[in-house]
Parts: sequence; structure tokens; C-alpha cells
Amino acid sequence: MSGHLAVVGLGPGDARWLTPEAEAALAAADALYGYGPYLDRVPPRPGQARHPSDNREEDARAAAALRHAAEGARVALVSGGDPGVFAMAAAVCARIEAGPNAWRSLDVAIVPGVTAMLAVAARVGAPLGHDFCALSLSDNLKPWDLIERRLDAAAAGGFVIALYNPISRARPWQLGKAFERLRRRLPSSTPVVFGRAVGRDREKVLVCELEAADPAAADMATLIIVGSPMTRVIARPGRDPLVYTPRFAGDGK
Amino acid sequence: MSGHLAVVGLGPGDARWLTPEAEAALAAADALYGYGPYLDRVPPRPGQARHPSDNREEDARAAAALRHAAEGARVALVSGGDPGVFAMAAAVCARIEAGPNAWRSLDVAIVPGVTAMLAVAARVGAPLGHDFCALSLSDNLKPWDLIERRLDAAAAGGFVIALYNPISRARPWQLGKAFERLRRRLPSSTPVVFGRAVGRDREKVLVCELEAADPAAADMATLIIVGSPMTRVIARPGRDPLVYTPRFAGDGK
Repeated sequence: MSGHLAVVGLGPGDARWLTPEAEAALAAADALYGYGPYLDRVPPRPGQARHPSDNREEDARAAAALRHAAEGARVALVSGGDPGVFAMAAAVCARIEAGPNAWRSLDVAIVPGVTAMLAVAARVGAPLGHDFCALSLSDNLKPWDLIERRLDAAAAGGFVIALYNPISRARPWQLGKAFERLRRRLPSSTPVVFGRAVGRDREKVLVCELEAADPAAADMATLIIVGSPMTRVIARPGRDPLVYTPRFAGDGK
Repeated sequence: MSGHLAVVGLGPGDARWLTPEAEAALAAADALYGYGPYLDRVPPRPGQARHPSDNREEDARAAAALRHAAEGARVALVSGGDPGVFAMAAAVCARIEAGPNAWRSLDVAIVPGVTAMLAVAARVGAPLGHDFCALSLSDNLKPWDLIERRLDAAAAGGFVIALYNPISRARPWQLGKAFERLRRRLPSSTPVVFGRAVGRDREKVLVCELEAADPAAADMATLIIVGSPMTRVIARPGRDPLVYTPRFAGDGK
């Protein structure tokens, strides 16, 4: 089978975070698939077909891209950030597993990218400088009580926590509940970073304490980092504070 | 204070993973600092000073780069992967906190990069497609019993686990102990990915089951991903298997 599917990470939005490998995969494609706003970040090229689709149509989008590649085309399926983190690469793998046998012979490449938590962390210092976890707050794909158990496990384990998909119109209360849950186990002074649209228009970064963390400060374009009890904030005259988690912990200095 | 320090993520090694922002930061620097082998990845530029240092000299390296920037120079401190993940950004923040007040006025920028777990995940499919954590196995900077508690918390919480710094000459037994610990809580068939030097010479990727995971398959250049009980392997005729963790979990389908 001669077709090829590249699942391409665009990074968080700033073109200066698009890797040369991703750029090359986009340039080589006969056809592009992706969520509309992500596809809009890719400049049009003559002769290249574009197939935008809506949010939450990941399965159908993955299947359409696979079908097209199986016909012999070079297809690029774009993803924001890194395609392997709460994004299209897992949807493609699931379609391959459930799809016709022929799809297993397809040449599929995953092209990594800078995922949102790395870009948000970079803006404020190094909050992910020690052990951390990444957790999606969307209960579309898993039950809420599992999310709460994972928040408990992460906080009890001393992990810094990056929260993807914190809030949306259809999921208005989950982030508030998550902060409540975390307040049971973490000091009220634990640093929290809200990183909205980092690398894009109307970027906004906010640092506060867990006690004061307000879900209203987040929207669909926000990634949140909740520190561990070790995470520190350095005040800087005339500059935004630095937030970092030291590389050592416990008696391991 | 006119100096500038950029802490630059080079990605895992393949030049096609170096972002344009990182490339620009390297080109603009008067002086480069970094662990020797990372610095070797950066082509020399006329008029640019180079200050390689040894591994495990992170604090001294960060301080030297800060001192140089505080003298008014444009300094780039290079890091493999992403500088915020078990790398130089946290060391720089710690030095700023402990250093002279003037360092707090310095213009410091963290330039994110593709961190190793994203590159390894991309090579095999989407093992990080659901909630995951990143844990350093080095007990130079934290006590071993804390690492074991975190392994327990991560496995009990159903997180996929990326293990950084799994083994070295000075830390020969830790990875075997970690596998033992994880076998208590995870099915013996849990997929494990060893990604060695991904994107560099002598890249080697191995997929096995937790039961058969052999610490001897890892070295200092290896990143390991241990799946969750949901992680799946898809056999493919004539191709390497795909490893992925579905986006849904529990009854959240």
C-alpha cells in the first residue's frame, strides 16, 4: 500500500515553535485534515486539498484521513501542540485497530511538537522542573470520579499537575471542583499558573495561589499548571515573577 | 541591566526537531554554555564563545551563564529536549533565587523544545494519549523511597509513566527496582517502550511487556514509557507494532 499518513504537531500556535520536520510534512502533503482553527494556521499551498472539520469529531476525522491515505495519497492530519498528548495520534491508532486490515499496512508517521504545558511552563520559569503529570479534565471521555481519583493520586504523590481541557461551555463546573479537590491535599499557597493562548493573539498568563485560583480565569484555550508543595515563586522587581519546582526533593539535596 | 539569558531546548537531537525560535536564540548569542555533548550539536559561529561543561555540573553552569549575562552579554544556555523538563531551566531559577539581587532584574527567556518522551511516544504511536506522568528515576536529587511512593501513586492512579534518567553507571539498580515495584500494581502484560537516542545515531526502540522488561536494555540515553492497564499494542504485518493509550477510560466511552 503506497499511501502515507503523517499526524503532525503544530505546537501551541506561534510559528516559531513549528519544527522543521512538521513544516516539511505539511509541505509534502497532497491533502490536509484537521480541526478548522488548527488548519487555519497552515498557509495554503497550490494543489493541496484542505479538509477542515469540527471539534469533537476526532474519530470521523481520523477515519477520513486514513481512508484517503489508503487510496494512495500523502495525507497530513494536523493537531495543535503535540499530536500524542490528548490529541489526534491516539484517535488514529484507535481507528487503525478498529478499521480494515489494510490500514495496518499503511505508512503512518507521528511528527512530535511542543505541547502546551511546555510552552506555558517556559513563559513563567520551570514549574515542571521536577516530577509532574498531565491530566485532561474532560469528562466526555472518562467518568468524573476517575478524574478526582487521579487528582488525589497526583497531589498525594507530590507531582506538579498540568491540567489540559480545563473548561468549556459544555463543562462549566469541572475546573472549580478540581481546585476544591486539590485544596484538600495541597497547601493553600501552592502556586497555580493559568496560561491562555500562549504563543498566539491575546496570550494571557496569570500566576496566583491555589486558595485564590478562580475557574473564571480559564477558557478553552487555557492550560493550567498546579504546583507541588515544593514549587516556588521568585518576585522580581519590574518583571513578572518566576515560578519553578526545584530539581531536588525531600532529603535528596 | 542589559544582559540577556536564553535557556534553549535543543529537542532530543534530530536537527529537524530544533524549533525556529531555538535556532534564532542560538544565532543571536554572544556566548553558549552547556553540557559538552549538547553543545556539540550546535554548529560553531564566528565570534561566538563556547563554554562546555561536564554532566552533573548544572548549578555551576547556571551560575556561570547568569554571571556572564549580568555583565551585559547575550548568553544562550543549551539543554537537551525541553529545558523545563528535568533540565537547566529549574537550575537557572534556583540560582537566581539564591544569587545576587541584580540577577532578578536580568532578562531571562526559556525557549521550549520537544522533550524526549514526546519523541519516543511518536516513534511507536501514542502511548501518552491519555493521562500520564513524567518521573525522574535519579536518586541523586531525591530519596529512593520517594521515587517508590511516586511509582505507586502513578500506577495506582492509572497514569502512563514516562521514566527519565532511568539508569547510569552510578545508578545501576534503580531501574530494576522500579520495574519490580510497578509489577506489583500493573498487569504483567502492560506494554513498555524503551526509546534509546531517538532522533540520533544508533536510535533503538524496543517494545515489550512489563513482565519481560529488562533494565539491561536501557542506558543513559534511554527514555522509558510504561503503559497503563488501558495501553494497547496493535500488531502490523511487515511493520513495527503501534502502541497507544485510548483517549477514553472507564465508562467514559
